[in-house]
Amino acid sequence: MGTVRVSRRTLAWGECDPAGIIFYPNYYRWMDEATWNLFAAAGFPAERMRAEHFSLPLVDSRCEFLSSPLFGDEIEIRSQVAKWGRSSFTLSHDFLIAGEGRLLARGTESRVWCRYESGPGSPLRSVPIPDEARTALGAPAA
Amino acid sequence: MGTVRVSRRTLAWGECDPAGIIFYPNYYRWMDEATWNLFAAAGFPAERMRAEHFSLPLVDSRCEFLSSPLFGDEIEIRSQVAKWGRSSFTLSHDFLIAGEGRLLARGTESRVWCRYESGPGSPLRSVPIPDEARTALGAPAA
Amino acid sequence: MGTVRVSRRTLAWGECDPAGIIFYPNYYRWMDEATWNLFAAAGFPAERMRAEHFSLPLVDSRCEFLSSPLFGDEIEIRSQVAKWGRSSFTLSHDFLIAGEGRLLARGTESRVWCRYESGPGSPLRSVPIPDEARTALGAPAA
Amino acid sequence: MGTVRVSRRTLAWGECDPAGIIFYPNYYRWMDEATWNLFAAAGFPAERMRAEHFSLPLVDSRCEFLSSPLFGDEIEIRSQVAKWGRSSFTLSHDFLIAGEGRLLARGTESRVWCRYESGPGSPLRSVPIPDEARTALGAPAA
Repeated sequence: MGTVRVSRRTLAWGECDPAGIIFYPNYYRWMDEATWNLFAAAGFPAERMRAEHFSLPLVDSRCEFLSSPLFGDEIEIRSQVAKWGRSSFTLSHDFLIAGEGRLLARGTESRVWCRYESGPGSPLRSVPIPDEARTALGAPAA
Repeated sequence: MGTVRVSRRTLAWGECDPAGIIFYPNYYRWMDEATWNLFAAAGFPAERMRAEHFSLPLVDSRCEFLSSPLFGDEIEIRSQVAKWGRSSFTLSHDFLIAGEGRLLARGTESRVWCRYESGPGSPLRSVPIPDEARTALGAPAA
Repeated sequence: MGTVRVSRRTLAWGECDPAGIIFYPNYYRWMDEATWNLFAAAGFPAERMRAEHFSLPLVDSRCEFLSSPLFGDEIEIRSQVAKWGRSSFTLSHDFLIAGEGRLLARGTESRVWCRYESGPGSPLRSVPIPDEARTALGAPAA
Repeated sequence: MGTVRVSRRTLAWGECDPAGIIFYPNYYRWMDEATWNLFAAAGFPAERMRAEHFSLPLVDSRCEFLSSPLFGDEIEIRSQVAKWGRSSFTLSHDFLIAGEGRLLARGTESRVWCRYESGPGSPLRSVPIPDEARTALGAPAA
Protein backbone atom coordinates (compact mmCIF):
# COMPACT_ATOMS: atom_id res chain seq x y z
CA MET A 1 0.00 0.00 0.00
CA GLY A 2 1.04 3.55 -0.31
CA THR A 3 -0.01 7.04 -1.22
CA VAL A 4 -2.74 7.10 -3.85
CA ARG A 5 -2.57 9.91 -6.35
CA VAL A 6 -5.84 10.82 -8.02
CA SER A 7 -5.94 12.52 -11.40
CA ARG A 8 -8.81 13.32 -13.71
CA ARG A 9 -9.23 13.66 -17.43
CA THR A 10 -12.04 13.98 -19.91
CA LEU A 11 -12.10 11.32 -22.60
CA ALA A 12 -11.24 13.18 -25.82
CA TRP A 13 -12.83 12.74 -29.24
CA GLY A 14 -9.50 11.61 -30.68
CA GLU A 15 -9.07 8.99 -27.95
CA CYS A 16 -12.28 7.22 -29.05
CA ASP A 17 -12.70 4.72 -31.86
CA PRO A 18 -15.53 4.26 -34.37
CA ALA A 19 -17.48 2.32 -31.72
CA GLY A 20 -17.64 5.65 -29.83
CA ILE A 21 -15.68 4.28 -26.87
CA ILE A 22 -12.09 4.62 -25.72
CA PHE A 23 -9.46 3.14 -28.04
CA TYR A 24 -7.85 0.83 -25.52
CA PRO A 25 -4.12 1.67 -25.99
CA ASN A 26 -4.97 5.09 -24.57
CA TYR A 27 -5.29 3.49 -21.13
CA TYR A 28 -1.58 2.70 -21.36
CA ARG A 29 -0.73 6.26 -22.43
CA TRP A 30 -2.62 7.43 -19.36
CA MET A 31 -0.84 4.97 -17.09
CA ASP A 32 2.54 6.19 -18.29
CA GLU A 33 1.50 9.79 -17.74
CA ALA A 34 0.06 8.99 -14.30
CA THR A 35 3.31 7.30 -13.30
CA TRP A 36 5.39 10.33 -14.25
CA ASN A 37 2.94 12.52 -12.33
CA LEU A 38 3.09 10.27 -9.28
CA PHE A 39 6.87 10.59 -9.10
CA ALA A 40 6.76 14.31 -9.90
CA ALA A 41 4.48 14.74 -6.89
CA ALA A 42 6.93 12.68 -4.85
CA GLY A 43 9.79 15.07 -5.56
CA PHE A 44 11.02 13.61 -8.85
CA PRO A 45 9.72 15.87 -11.61
CA ALA A 46 10.89 15.57 -15.23
CA GLU A 47 13.82 18.00 -14.84
CA ARG A 48 15.21 16.12 -11.88
CA MET A 49 14.80 12.73 -13.58
CA ARG A 50 16.70 14.18 -16.54
CA ALA A 51 19.38 15.87 -14.43
CA GLU A 52 20.07 12.74 -12.37
CA HIS A 53 19.94 10.47 -15.46
CA PHE A 54 17.11 8.38 -14.08
CA SER A 55 14.77 6.35 -16.23
CA LEU A 56 11.95 3.94 -15.32
CA PRO A 57 11.81 1.33 -18.08
CA LEU A 58 8.98 -1.19 -18.15
CA VAL A 59 9.22 -4.90 -17.67
CA ASP A 60 5.56 -5.65 -18.15
CA SER A 61 2.19 -3.91 -18.34
CA ARG A 62 -1.33 -5.19 -18.21
CA CYS A 63 -4.91 -3.95 -18.21
CA GLU A 64 -8.31 -5.52 -17.60
CA PHE A 65 -11.26 -3.82 -19.24
CA LEU A 66 -14.57 -3.89 -17.38
CA SER A 67 -16.72 -1.14 -18.84
CA SER A 68 -16.08 1.35 -21.63
CA PRO A 69 -16.21 5.12 -21.26
CA LEU A 70 -17.74 7.28 -24.00
CA PHE A 71 -16.45 10.47 -25.54
CA GLY A 72 -16.84 13.30 -23.04
CA ASP A 73 -16.89 11.11 -19.90
CA GLU A 74 -14.85 12.39 -17.00
CA ILE A 75 -12.49 9.72 -15.75
CA GLU A 76 -10.73 9.40 -12.45
CA ILE A 77 -7.39 7.60 -12.26
CA ARG A 78 -6.14 6.28 -8.91
CA SER A 79 -2.47 5.46 -9.09
CA GLN A 80 -0.11 4.04 -6.52
CA VAL A 81 2.95 1.88 -6.10
CA ALA A 82 1.38 -1.41 -5.10
CA LYS A 83 4.58 -3.39 -4.60
CA TRP A 84 8.10 -2.28 -3.75
CA GLY A 85 11.30 -4.19 -4.49
CA ARG A 86 14.83 -2.90 -4.18
CA SER A 87 14.95 -1.52 -7.73
CA SER A 88 11.77 -2.88 -9.23
CA PHE A 89 8.26 -1.85 -8.34
CA THR A 90 4.71 -2.40 -9.52
CA LEU A 91 2.20 0.37 -10.04
CA SER A 92 -1.53 -0.07 -10.07
CA HIS A 93 -3.85 2.32 -11.88
CA ASP A 94 -7.62 2.10 -11.41
CA PHE A 95 -9.87 3.93 -13.86
CA LEU A 96 -13.35 5.01 -12.80
CA ILE A 97 -16.16 7.25 -14.00
CA ALA A 98 -15.61 10.33 -11.84
CA GLY A 99 -18.40 10.88 -9.33
CA GLU A 100 -20.22 7.61 -10.04
CA GLY A 101 -17.34 5.41 -9.03
CA ARG A 102 -18.09 2.83 -11.73
CA LEU A 103 -14.86 0.89 -12.39
CA LEU A 104 -13.77 0.98 -16.04
CA ALA A 105 -10.41 -0.71 -16.08
CA ARG A 106 -7.63 -1.88 -13.82
CA GLY A 107 -4.05 -1.63 -15.00
CA THR A 108 -0.61 -2.49 -13.70
CA GLU A 109 2.91 -1.59 -14.74
CA SER A 110 6.12 -3.28 -13.57
CA ARG A 111 9.10 -0.97 -13.80
CA VAL A 112 12.71 -0.78 -12.72
CA TRP A 113 14.44 2.29 -11.33
CA CYS A 114 17.47 2.78 -13.59
CA ARG A 115 20.24 5.25 -14.27
CA TYR A 116 22.05 5.90 -17.52
CA GLU A 117 25.66 4.91 -16.83
CA SER A 118 27.11 7.93 -18.54
CA GLY A 119 24.33 10.21 -19.66
CA PRO A 120 21.35 9.82 -22.00
CA GLY A 121 21.81 7.22 -24.69
CA SER A 122 24.34 5.20 -22.68
CA PRO A 123 23.35 1.82 -21.20
CA LEU A 124 20.81 1.74 -18.39
CA ARG A 125 21.67 0.05 -15.08
CA SER A 126 19.21 -0.69 -12.28
CA VAL A 127 19.82 1.24 -9.05
CA PRO A 128 18.06 1.11 -5.68
CA ILE A 129 14.85 3.16 -5.58
CA PRO A 130 15.83 6.41 -3.81
CA ASP A 131 14.67 6.49 -0.19
CA GLU A 132 13.25 9.93 -0.81
CA ALA A 133 10.83 8.45 -3.37
CA ARG A 134 9.91 5.54 -1.13
CA THR A 135 9.18 7.79 1.81
CA ALA A 136 7.21 10.31 -0.22
CA LEU A 137 5.04 7.53 -1.63
CA GLY A 138 4.43 5.85 1.71
CA ALA A 139 6.43 2.67 1.18
CA PRO A 140 6.38 0.37 4.20
CA ALA A 141 9.55 0.39 6.29
CA ALA A 142 12.09 -2.05 4.89
CA MET B 1 -12.82 38.55 -31.42
CA GLY B 2 -14.64 36.55 -28.86
CA THR B 3 -14.40 34.70 -25.62
CA VAL B 4 -10.97 33.20 -25.05
CA ARG B 5 -10.90 29.86 -23.26
CA VAL B 6 -7.66 29.03 -21.50
CA SER B 7 -6.65 25.47 -20.77
CA ARG B 8 -3.44 24.00 -19.43
CA ARG B 9 -1.61 20.73 -19.85
CA THR B 10 1.75 19.30 -18.96
CA LEU B 11 3.73 17.98 -21.91
CA ALA B 12 3.80 14.21 -21.43
CA TRP B 13 6.74 11.85 -21.97
CA GLY B 14 4.84 10.05 -24.70
CA GLU B 15 4.10 13.32 -26.51
CA CYS B 16 7.82 13.98 -26.99
CA ASP B 17 10.13 12.61 -29.66
CA PRO B 18 13.75 11.45 -29.45
CA ALA B 19 14.86 15.09 -29.70
CA GLY B 20 13.20 15.51 -26.28
CA ILE B 21 10.68 18.04 -27.58
CA ILE B 22 7.02 17.84 -28.53
CA PHE B 23 6.22 15.59 -31.49
CA TYR B 24 4.44 18.21 -33.57
CA PRO B 25 1.20 16.36 -34.54
CA ASN B 26 0.31 16.54 -30.85
CA TYR B 27 -0.40 20.25 -31.29
CA TYR B 28 -3.23 19.24 -33.59
CA ARG B 29 -4.58 16.69 -31.10
CA TRP B 30 -4.61 19.47 -28.53
CA MET B 31 -6.36 21.89 -30.90
CA ASP B 32 -9.09 19.36 -31.55
CA GLU B 33 -9.51 18.77 -27.83
CA ALA B 34 -9.50 22.51 -27.10
CA THR B 35 -12.20 23.05 -29.71
CA TRP B 36 -14.49 20.45 -28.17
CA ASN B 37 -13.85 22.01 -24.75
CA LEU B 38 -14.60 25.49 -26.06
CA PHE B 39 -18.00 24.41 -27.33
CA ALA B 40 -18.68 22.31 -24.22
CA ALA B 41 -18.12 25.45 -22.15
CA ALA B 42 -20.48 27.30 -24.51
CA GLY B 43 -23.34 24.90 -23.81
CA PHE B 44 -22.57 22.24 -26.38
CA PRO B 45 -20.96 19.32 -24.53
CA ALA B 46 -20.33 15.94 -26.14
CA GLU B 47 -23.72 14.47 -25.19
CA ARG B 48 -25.62 17.38 -26.70
CA MET B 49 -23.52 17.32 -29.90
CA ARG B 50 -24.33 13.61 -30.15
CA ALA B 51 -28.03 14.00 -29.30
CA GLU B 52 -28.55 16.80 -31.83
CA HIS B 53 -26.47 15.03 -34.49
CA PHE B 54 -24.00 17.87 -34.79
CA SER B 55 -20.48 17.47 -36.11
CA LEU B 56 -17.74 20.03 -36.78
CA PRO B 57 -15.66 18.67 -39.66
CA LEU B 58 -12.48 20.42 -40.69
CA VAL B 59 -11.78 22.20 -43.91
CA ASP B 60 -8.22 23.15 -43.13
CA SER B 61 -5.78 23.32 -40.23
CA ARG B 62 -2.43 24.97 -39.83
CA CYS B 63 0.24 25.56 -37.25
CA GLU B 64 3.38 27.71 -37.03
CA PHE B 65 6.09 26.48 -34.69
CA LEU B 66 8.16 29.12 -32.92
CA SER B 67 9.79 27.44 -29.95
CA SER B 68 9.69 23.85 -28.71
CA PRO B 69 8.51 22.75 -25.27
CA LEU B 70 10.34 19.99 -23.41
CA PHE B 71 8.95 17.03 -21.52
CA GLY B 72 7.37 18.26 -18.29
CA ASP B 73 6.75 21.84 -19.43
CA GLU B 74 3.39 23.29 -18.48
CA ILE B 75 1.64 24.68 -21.50
CA GLU B 76 -1.18 27.17 -21.73
CA ILE B 77 -3.57 27.04 -24.67
CA ARG B 78 -5.65 30.10 -25.55
CA SER B 79 -8.49 29.17 -27.86
CA GLN B 80 -11.18 31.25 -29.48
CA VAL B 81 -13.33 31.55 -32.55
CA ALA B 82 -11.42 34.15 -34.51
CA LYS B 83 -13.78 34.41 -37.49
CA TRP B 84 -17.49 33.69 -37.81
CA GLY B 85 -19.31 32.81 -41.00
CA ARG B 86 -22.87 31.55 -41.30
CA SER B 87 -21.89 27.87 -40.99
CA SER B 88 -18.13 28.03 -41.20
CA PHE B 89 -15.80 29.44 -38.60
CA THR B 90 -12.11 29.68 -37.85
CA LEU B 91 -10.57 28.92 -34.51
CA SER B 92 -7.23 30.17 -33.32
CA HIS B 93 -5.18 28.35 -30.69
CA ASP B 94 -2.11 29.97 -29.17
CA PHE B 95 0.32 27.80 -27.22
CA LEU B 96 2.54 29.34 -24.55
CA ILE B 97 4.77 28.27 -21.70
CA ALA B 98 2.48 28.82 -18.70
CA GLY B 99 3.65 31.60 -16.44
CA GLU B 100 6.46 32.79 -18.70
CA GLY B 101 4.22 33.68 -21.60
CA ARG B 102 6.78 32.52 -24.19
CA LEU B 103 4.87 31.73 -27.41
CA LEU B 104 5.46 28.19 -28.66
CA ALA B 105 3.10 27.80 -31.57
CA ARG B 106 0.12 29.40 -33.22
CA GLY B 107 -2.52 27.21 -34.82
CA THR B 108 -5.76 27.65 -36.70
CA GLU B 109 -8.59 25.34 -37.66
CA SER B 110 -11.33 26.07 -40.19
CA ARG B 111 -14.48 24.08 -39.50
CA VAL B 112 -18.08 23.89 -40.59
CA TRP B 113 -21.07 23.42 -38.32
CA CYS B 114 -22.85 20.35 -39.72
CA ARG B 115 -25.67 17.99 -38.90
CA TYR B 116 -26.03 14.35 -39.88
CA GLU B 117 -29.12 14.26 -42.10
CA SER B 118 -30.53 11.17 -40.49
CA GLY B 119 -28.36 10.12 -37.59
CA PRO B 120 -24.71 9.15 -37.23
CA GLY B 121 -23.17 7.67 -40.34
CA SER B 122 -25.59 9.43 -42.67
CA PRO B 123 -24.37 12.33 -44.87
CA LEU B 124 -23.38 15.58 -43.20
CA ARG B 125 -25.01 18.85 -44.24
CA SER B 126 -23.86 22.30 -43.17
CA VAL B 127 -26.32 24.20 -40.96
CA PRO B 128 -26.19 27.72 -39.51
CA ILE B 129 -24.11 27.96 -36.34
CA PRO B 130 -26.66 27.96 -33.48
CA ASP B 131 -27.24 31.46 -32.05
CA GLU B 132 -26.76 30.01 -28.60
CA ALA B 133 -23.18 29.06 -29.47
CA ARG B 134 -22.47 32.43 -31.09
CA THR B 135 -23.75 34.33 -28.11
CA ALA B 136 -21.96 32.18 -25.56
CA LEU B 137 -18.70 32.67 -27.43
CA GLY B 138 -19.08 36.40 -27.82
CA ALA B 139 -19.62 36.55 -31.58
CA PRO B 140 -20.17 40.09 -32.83
CA ALA B 141 -23.78 40.98 -33.59
CA ALA B 142 -24.68 39.94 -37.14
CA MET C 1 -1.85 -23.27 -32.54
CA GLY C 2 -3.02 -21.74 -35.74
CA THR C 3 -2.11 -19.66 -38.73
CA VAL C 4 0.58 -17.10 -37.97
CA ARG C 5 0.30 -13.80 -39.79
CA VAL C 6 3.52 -11.85 -40.15
CA SER C 7 3.52 -8.10 -40.67
CA ARG C 8 6.34 -5.59 -40.71
CA ARG C 9 6.69 -1.95 -39.81
CA THR C 10 9.46 0.55 -39.37
CA LEU C 11 9.53 2.23 -35.98
CA ALA C 12 8.56 5.85 -36.65
CA TRP C 13 10.10 8.97 -35.13
CA GLY C 14 6.78 9.89 -33.52
CA GLU C 15 6.47 6.43 -31.94
CA CYS C 16 9.68 6.98 -29.96
CA ASP C 17 10.14 8.81 -26.70
CA PRO C 18 12.95 11.10 -25.49
CA ALA C 19 14.97 8.00 -24.56
CA GLY C 20 15.07 7.31 -28.31
CA ILE C 21 13.20 4.02 -27.98
CA ILE C 22 9.62 2.97 -28.60
CA PHE C 23 7.00 4.62 -26.38
CA TYR C 24 5.48 1.43 -25.02
CA PRO C 25 1.73 2.06 -25.59
CA ASN C 26 2.52 1.87 -29.30
CA TYR C 27 2.93 -1.90 -28.92
CA TYR C 28 -0.76 -2.02 -28.03
CA ARG C 29 -1.72 0.14 -31.03
CA TRP C 30 0.19 -2.33 -33.19
CA MET C 31 -1.48 -5.33 -31.57
CA ASP C 32 -4.90 -3.87 -32.27
CA GLU C 33 -3.95 -3.20 -35.88
CA ALA C 34 -2.43 -6.67 -36.27
CA THR C 35 -5.63 -8.24 -34.94
CA TRP C 36 -7.80 -6.40 -37.46
CA ASN C 37 -5.36 -7.45 -40.20
CA LEU C 38 -5.41 -11.06 -39.06
CA PHE C 39 -9.19 -11.22 -39.35
CA ALA C 40 -9.19 -9.26 -42.61
CA ALA C 41 -6.86 -11.91 -44.05
CA ALA C 42 -9.24 -14.56 -42.72
CA GLY C 43 -12.18 -13.18 -44.70
CA PHE C 44 -13.43 -10.57 -42.22
CA PRO C 45 -12.23 -7.18 -43.46
CA ALA C 46 -13.44 -3.89 -41.98
CA GLU C 47 -16.43 -3.54 -44.33
CA ARG C 48 -17.73 -6.99 -43.51
CA MET C 49 -17.25 -6.49 -39.75
CA ARG C 50 -19.24 -3.26 -40.11
CA ALA C 51 -21.93 -4.77 -42.36
CA GLU C 52 -22.51 -7.75 -40.07
CA HIS C 53 -22.38 -5.59 -36.92
CA PHE C 54 -19.46 -7.50 -35.44
CA SER C 55 -17.11 -6.08 -32.86
CA LEU C 56 -14.21 -7.67 -30.95
CA PRO C 57 -14.04 -5.90 -27.57
CA LEU C 58 -11.17 -6.60 -25.22
CA VAL C 59 -11.31 -8.29 -21.88
CA ASP C 60 -7.64 -7.98 -21.07
CA SER C 61 -4.33 -7.15 -22.73
CA ARG C 62 -0.77 -7.61 -21.62
CA CYS C 63 2.77 -7.11 -22.85
CA GLU C 64 6.23 -8.12 -21.62
CA PHE C 65 9.11 -5.92 -22.74
CA LEU C 66 12.45 -7.63 -23.33
CA SER C 67 14.51 -5.31 -25.50
CA SER C 68 13.77 -1.86 -26.93
CA PRO C 69 13.79 -0.97 -30.62
CA LEU C 70 15.23 2.35 -31.77
CA PHE C 71 13.85 4.84 -34.28
CA GLY C 72 14.22 3.39 -37.77
CA ASP C 73 14.36 -0.27 -36.73
CA GLU C 74 12.33 -2.64 -38.86
CA ILE C 75 10.07 -4.75 -36.71
CA GLU C 76 8.37 -8.03 -37.46
CA ILE C 77 5.08 -8.87 -35.77
CA ARG C 78 3.93 -12.50 -35.57
CA SER C 79 0.27 -12.69 -34.69
CA GLN C 80 -2.02 -15.65 -34.15
CA VAL C 81 -5.01 -16.82 -32.20
CA ALA C 82 -3.34 -18.81 -29.45
CA LYS C 83 -6.48 -20.01 -27.67
CA TRP C 84 -10.01 -20.53 -28.94
CA GLY C 85 -13.16 -20.53 -26.83
CA ARG C 86 -16.75 -20.50 -28.09
CA SER C 87 -16.95 -16.69 -28.21
CA SER C 88 -13.75 -15.65 -26.51
CA PHE C 89 -10.26 -16.06 -27.84
CA THR C 90 -6.73 -15.03 -27.01
CA LEU C 91 -4.29 -13.58 -29.49
CA SER C 92 -0.55 -13.61 -29.13
CA HIS C 93 1.68 -11.05 -30.83
CA ASP C 94 5.46 -11.48 -30.85
CA PHE C 95 7.62 -8.50 -31.80
CA LEU C 96 11.09 -9.07 -33.24
CA ILE C 97 13.83 -7.13 -35.01
CA ALA C 98 13.26 -8.19 -38.62
CA GLY C 99 16.07 -10.30 -40.01
CA GLU C 100 17.93 -10.65 -36.71
CA GLY C 101 15.14 -12.42 -34.92
CA ARG C 102 15.90 -10.68 -31.62
CA LEU C 103 12.71 -10.78 -29.51
CA LEU C 104 11.55 -7.33 -28.38
CA ALA C 105 8.24 -7.92 -26.71
CA ARG C 106 5.53 -10.50 -26.28
CA GLY C 107 1.92 -9.40 -26.07
CA THR C 108 -1.48 -11.00 -25.63
CA GLU C 109 -5.03 -9.78 -26.07
CA SER C 110 -8.17 -11.53 -24.82
CA ARG C 111 -11.22 -10.62 -26.85
CA VAL C 112 -14.82 -11.68 -27.33
CA TRP C 113 -16.60 -12.03 -30.64
CA CYS C 114 -19.67 -9.81 -30.31
CA ARG C 115 -22.52 -8.43 -32.36
CA TYR C 116 -24.39 -5.18 -31.87
CA GLU C 117 -27.96 -6.26 -31.10
CA SER C 118 -29.51 -3.68 -33.37
CA GLY C 119 -26.82 -1.80 -35.21
CA PRO C 120 -23.87 0.33 -34.13
CA GLY C 121 -24.30 2.01 -30.78
CA SER C 122 -26.75 -0.61 -29.49
CA PRO C 123 -25.66 -3.09 -26.80
CA LEU C 124 -23.07 -5.72 -27.68
CA ARG C 125 -23.84 -9.42 -27.16
CA SER C 126 -21.30 -12.23 -27.43
CA VAL C 127 -21.92 -14.67 -30.30
CA PRO C 128 -20.08 -17.84 -31.32
CA ILE C 129 -16.93 -17.18 -33.36
CA PRO C 130 -17.96 -17.80 -36.99
CA ASP C 131 -16.76 -21.18 -38.27
CA GLU C 132 -15.42 -19.43 -41.34
CA ALA C 133 -13.00 -17.45 -39.16
CA ARG C 134 -11.98 -20.51 -37.15
CA THR C 135 -11.26 -22.51 -40.27
CA ALA C 136 -9.37 -19.71 -42.01
CA LEU C 137 -7.18 -19.26 -38.96
CA GLY C 138 -6.46 -22.93 -38.50
CA ALA C 139 -8.39 -23.52 -35.27
CA PRO C 140 -8.21 -27.11 -34.09
CA ALA C 141 -11.31 -29.19 -34.77
CA ALA C 142 -13.83 -28.81 -31.94
CA MET D 1 9.45 19.54 -58.92
CA GLY D 2 11.36 16.51 -57.80
CA THR D 3 11.20 12.82 -57.10
CA VAL D 4 7.82 11.71 -55.81
CA ARG D 5 7.86 8.93 -53.25
CA VAL D 6 4.68 6.93 -52.98
CA SER D 7 3.77 5.04 -49.83
CA ARG D 8 0.62 3.20 -48.83
CA ARG D 9 -1.13 2.47 -45.60
CA THR D 10 -4.43 1.07 -44.45
CA LEU D 11 -6.43 3.38 -42.21
CA ALA D 12 -6.40 1.68 -38.80
CA TRP D 13 -9.30 1.35 -36.35
CA GLY D 14 -7.40 3.39 -33.78
CA GLU D 15 -6.77 6.19 -36.27
CA CYS D 16 -10.52 6.75 -36.68
CA ASP D 17 -12.83 8.76 -34.48
CA PRO D 18 -16.41 8.10 -33.37
CA ALA D 19 -17.62 9.49 -36.70
CA GLY D 20 -15.92 6.45 -38.25
CA ILE D 21 -13.49 8.58 -40.27
CA ILE D 22 -9.84 9.49 -39.83
CA PHE D 23 -9.02 11.57 -36.75
CA TYR D 24 -7.36 14.45 -38.55
CA PRO D 25 -4.09 14.82 -36.56
CA ASN D 26 -3.14 11.42 -37.96
CA TYR D 27 -2.53 13.08 -41.33
CA TYR D 28 0.29 14.99 -39.68
CA ARG D 29 1.73 11.83 -38.10
CA TRP D 30 1.75 10.33 -41.59
CA MET D 31 3.40 13.40 -43.11
CA ASP D 32 6.18 13.25 -40.56
CA GLU D 33 6.68 9.54 -41.25
CA ALA D 34 6.59 10.09 -45.02
CA THR D 35 9.23 12.81 -44.72
CA TRP D 36 11.61 10.53 -42.80
CA ASN D 37 10.99 7.82 -45.40
CA LEU D 38 11.63 10.23 -48.26
CA PHE D 39 15.03 11.15 -46.87
CA ALA D 40 15.83 7.54 -45.93
CA ALA D 41 15.22 6.60 -49.57
CA ALA D 42 17.50 9.49 -50.58
CA GLY D 43 20.42 8.11 -48.61
CA PHE D 44 19.67 9.65 -45.22
CA PRO D 45 18.16 6.90 -43.06
CA ALA D 46 17.58 7.29 -39.32
CA GLU D 47 21.03 5.98 -38.31
CA ARG D 48 22.83 8.42 -40.58
CA MET D 49 20.70 11.37 -39.44
CA ARG D 50 21.59 10.41 -35.86
CA ALA D 51 25.29 9.81 -36.59
CA GLU D 52 25.70 13.13 -38.40
CA HIS D 53 23.61 15.01 -35.80
CA PHE D 54 21.06 16.18 -38.35
CA SER D 55 17.53 17.20 -37.48
CA LEU D 56 14.71 18.61 -39.62
CA PRO D 57 12.63 20.84 -37.34
CA LEU D 58 9.37 22.30 -38.60
CA VAL D 59 8.58 25.92 -39.21
CA ASP D 60 5.01 25.40 -40.30
CA SER D 61 2.63 22.66 -41.37
CA ARG D 62 -0.75 22.75 -43.01
CA CYS D 63 -3.41 20.44 -44.36
CA GLU D 64 -6.58 20.86 -46.40
CA PHE D 65 -9.23 18.19 -45.97
CA LEU D 66 -11.33 17.33 -49.01
CA SER D 67 -12.87 13.94 -48.37
CA SER D 68 -12.66 11.58 -45.40
CA PRO D 69 -11.39 8.01 -45.52
CA LEU D 70 -13.12 5.30 -43.50
CA PHE D 71 -11.62 2.57 -41.35
CA GLY D 72 -10.03 -0.05 -43.61
CA ASP D 73 -9.50 2.24 -46.62
CA GLU D 74 -6.16 1.89 -48.35
CA ILE D 75 -4.50 5.26 -48.72
CA GLU D 76 -1.76 6.36 -51.04
CA ILE D 77 0.59 9.16 -49.98
CA ARG D 78 2.58 11.04 -52.63
CA SER D 79 5.40 12.99 -51.03
CA GLN D 80 8.01 15.26 -52.53
CA VAL D 81 10.09 18.31 -51.82
CA ALA D 82 8.09 20.98 -53.59
CA LYS D 83 10.40 23.93 -52.89
CA TRP D 84 14.12 24.07 -52.17
CA GLY D 85 15.93 26.84 -50.33
CA ARG D 86 19.50 26.78 -49.09
CA SER D 87 18.61 25.28 -45.71
CA SER D 88 14.85 25.42 -45.73
CA PHE D 89 12.53 23.39 -47.89
CA THR D 90 8.84 22.67 -48.27
CA LEU D 91 7.38 19.23 -48.64
CA SER D 92 4.02 18.43 -50.15
CA HIS D 93 2.07 15.30 -49.27
CA ASP D 94 -1.02 14.32 -51.24
CA PHE D 95 -3.36 11.71 -49.78
CA LEU D 96 -5.56 9.64 -52.09
CA ILE D 97 -7.73 6.54 -51.98
CA ALA D 98 -5.39 3.96 -53.52
CA GLY D 99 -6.57 2.72 -56.88
CA GLU D 100 -9.48 5.17 -57.19
CA GLY D 101 -7.31 8.25 -57.11
CA ARG D 102 -9.89 10.24 -55.13
CA LEU D 103 -8.02 13.07 -53.36
CA LEU D 104 -8.54 13.07 -49.59
CA ALA D 105 -6.21 15.75 -48.31
CA ARG D 106 -3.32 17.91 -49.33
CA GLY D 107 -0.64 18.75 -46.79
CA THR D 108 2.55 20.76 -46.64
CA GLU D 109 5.43 20.98 -44.19
CA SER D 110 8.11 23.67 -44.08
CA ARG D 111 11.31 22.45 -42.49
CA VAL D 112 14.91 23.50 -42.02
CA TRP D 113 17.95 21.26 -42.37
CA CYS D 114 19.78 21.62 -39.05
CA ARG D 115 22.65 20.13 -37.14
CA TYR D 116 23.10 19.86 -33.38
CA GLU D 117 26.14 22.00 -32.61
CA SER D 118 27.65 19.50 -30.24
CA GLY D 119 25.56 16.36 -30.19
CA PRO D 120 21.93 15.62 -29.31
CA GLY D 121 20.38 18.03 -26.87
CA SER D 122 22.71 20.89 -27.81
CA PRO D 123 21.38 23.87 -29.79
CA LEU D 124 20.34 23.34 -33.39
CA ARG D 125 21.88 25.43 -36.18
CA SER D 126 20.68 25.53 -39.77
CA VAL D 127 23.13 24.14 -42.33
CA PRO D 128 22.94 23.93 -46.12
CA ILE D 129 20.90 20.97 -47.38
CA PRO D 130 23.50 18.33 -48.36
CA ASP D 131 24.01 18.15 -52.12
CA GLU D 132 23.64 14.40 -51.90
CA ALA D 133 20.05 14.83 -50.64
CA ARG D 134 19.25 17.46 -53.29
CA THR D 135 20.54 15.29 -56.09
CA ALA D 136 18.84 12.13 -54.86
CA LEU D 137 15.53 13.96 -54.65
CA GLY D 138 15.82 15.58 -58.05
CA ALA D 139 16.28 19.19 -56.97
CA PRO D 140 16.69 21.54 -59.92
CA ALA D 141 20.26 22.66 -60.58
CA ALA D 142 21.11 25.70 -58.46
